[in-house]
Amino acid sequence: MRLALHEALKGRYLTYTNPMVGAVFVKNNKIIGVGHHLGFGYEHAEVNAFHNVQSPEEVNNSTLYVTLEPCSHFGKTPPCCRQLVAWGVKRVYIAQKDPNPLVGDKGISYLREHGVEIHLGLEQAAAEQLNQFYNFFYRQQRPFITLKVAQTLDGRVSLDGEQRTYLTDEVANQDVQKLRGDYQAILVGSGTVLADDPKLTVRHQLKYPPVRVVLDRRGRVTPVQQVTDDAAPTWLFTENQKSTAKLADTAVKVFYRPKWTIKLVIQELAQAGIQSVLVEGGPQLHDAFLLANNWQRLIVYQTNQLAGGTSLAAFQSRRQSTELTTLEIRSVKKIGNAIKITGEMA
Amino acid sequence: MRLALHEALKGRYLTYTNPMVGAVFVKNNKIIGVGHHLGFGYEHAEVNAFHNVQSPEEVNNSTLYVTLEPCSHFGKTPPCCRQLVAWGVKRVYIAQKDPNPLVGDKGISYLREHGVEIHLGLEQAAAEQLNQFYNFFYRQQRPFITLKVAQTLDGRVSLDGEQRTYLTDEVANQDVQKLRGDYQAILVGSGTVLADDPKLTVRHQLKYPPVRVVLDRRGRVTPVQQVTDDAAPTWLFTENQKSTAKLADTAVKVFYRPKWTIKLVIQELAQAGIQSVLVEGGPQLHDAFLLANNWQRLIVYQTNQLAGGTSLAAFQSRRQSTELTTLEIRSVKKIGNAIKITGEMA
Repeated sequence: MRLALHEALKGRYLTYTNPMVGAVFVKNNKIIGVGHHLGFGYEHAEVNAFHNVQSPEEVNNSTLYVTLEPCSHFGKTPPCCRQLVAWGVKRVYIAQKDPNPLVGDKGISYLREHGVEIHLGLEQAAAEQLNQFYNFFYRQQRPFITLKVAQTLDGRVSLDGEQRTYLTDEVANQDVQKLRGDYQAILVGSGTVLADDPKLTVRHQLKYPPVRVVLDRRGRVTPVQQVTDDAAPTWLFTENQKSTAKLADTAVKVFYRPKWTIKLVIQELAQAGIQSVLVEGGPQLHDAFLLANNWQRLIVYQTNQLAGGTSLAAFQSRRQSTELTTLEIRSVKKIGNAIKITGEMA
Repeated sequence: MRLALHEALKGRYLTYTNPMVGAVFVKNNKIIGVGHHLGFGYEHAEVNAFHNVQSPEEVNNSTLYVTLEPCSHFGKTPPCCRQLVAWGVKRVYIAQKDPNPLVGDKGISYLREHGVEIHLGLEQAAAEQLNQFYNFFYRQQRPFITLKVAQTLDGRVSLDGEQRTYLTDEVANQDVQKLRGDYQAILVGSGTVLADDPKLTVRHQLKYPPVRVVLDRRGRVTPVQQVTDDAAPTWLFTENQKSTAKLADTAVKVFYRPKWTIKLVIQELAQAGIQSVLVEGGPQLHDAFLLANNWQRLIVYQTNQLAGGTSLAAFQSRRQSTELTTLEIRSVKKIGNAIKITGEMA
């Protein structure tokens, strides 16, 4: 199963809304085939592993180790559990059930009904970790939300004035780029778009770049801003009806409502199938998420600098701060000029 | 020399304004005596090591390893270099010269003039580290200043409102107590005294507890505040002449001037022989030190909490923040519910 988990990772950045899955066929204590889910719309792991077996007959009477419950529905490919039965697989070790209601339990039931021996739960924790956003999304019916902050040692994100303040160095920036690639959407406020004019793209061209989501209540974003280019999809949430016309010549998808809340935006993203969101600020947006208590993880890139004075804090708004939110610190490591701190809601 | 360095540490918290020193006598490749500076006003390391040798004659023709240049002046004890000559020591390995102008080079010159073979610089870096505040003080003619901050993950020190906000847990607090013991003075602003009413003492009774220095321009501190008790000396710097009368019944020493600046306070402390100062805030005081560019080290205890909103930042004042101050991060470790980050002026 360890090998299957390792194999699954080969699908990273390619499976999009599908989970990463790895599969290994074993017969007479020998590995006869290894495979992974190749990518969204492509072969599932079981089929890929089958194609890697020298001759198809070998699979007869074999044992399959697979990191996720084999699928039972006709999607972009025929259901794997039928094929496993057809190939004569004798025994299947499954690390975790599929949380997707289209599949969950149905694959296992089908296999059991057709005489396949099922063992569930081997290396479950590692398998859950592998597709944590996918699992969270189907179980909680909402995307997994990570707040990402780059701040000075004293918790500031920019100096006073109009200029963009560069805090993280090249090494830390590359880590941020890699981080973005793991999420299906990147969410920022219009303040950040206007002040920093970020592209919000991932350096290495990804097949499925994260959607750039901009919260622009007042409708201040115009085609001048880089985020409106076609380097990746952009969805703009606004309370200003004029935004639609303003951005008509761009590829930006405008979501208008007279009133948007954090909750409504997240619901909209969930409905669009977005399983994970990286919230990159600015301070007011972060503070709104903090207040709404609507996030799972916080990643802080804390640099070796001090700003002091009246500079802008990472979580800042006009609201009175009356209580502390406690996190569980999961990891602390030095990356470039920053200390990267990862915490989760305690 | 390693043994001498290790031995020197036994004098920690006891040598006060004196340096920690360790000494080892070696003869015929055998260690014949080990000692350290016992404490302020007590035996120096060389003498202590001598007393630990089985019979005094053994020291004749021996080699001495000592972490600091032997003293040459009559202070609270007779000069060590004369005694070394009298004992017939043949060779002396010295890790570092004494930066104290009363001693520096004179001990070495005296020994050389009397035919003792001198080797300087063995394990010098470690020896310098051992007494870094002492070395800094005599070289720079001013105390070594460390800013200490306990803040949330988003760089805040207290929630809005009058209440004191407790951030660090018991384990982190104990580390702070230990830290305080290494400094000769703890400096706070009157805002912190009024808001938090801290005792600013070290838990374990020290022979030389750090002086509690309070910057109280407006003269707001009264005998009600714990810092005015007699658990440790307290020095109050004020621009309000009434403070002297107000605190007349306490042991507080009042330093009045019509105008105090950070620089003047530090000069006054230097003149009083204070070699090291731990600045514990609040935010305005920290920000004043940041602006004055007058500090050497920053220690941040960053807890697993978020505060957000308008809560108080660790370095905060009404001044515009127009540039970043860059540090060199020296260490990052988890202590209790905090990440302890130590940085020095880059």
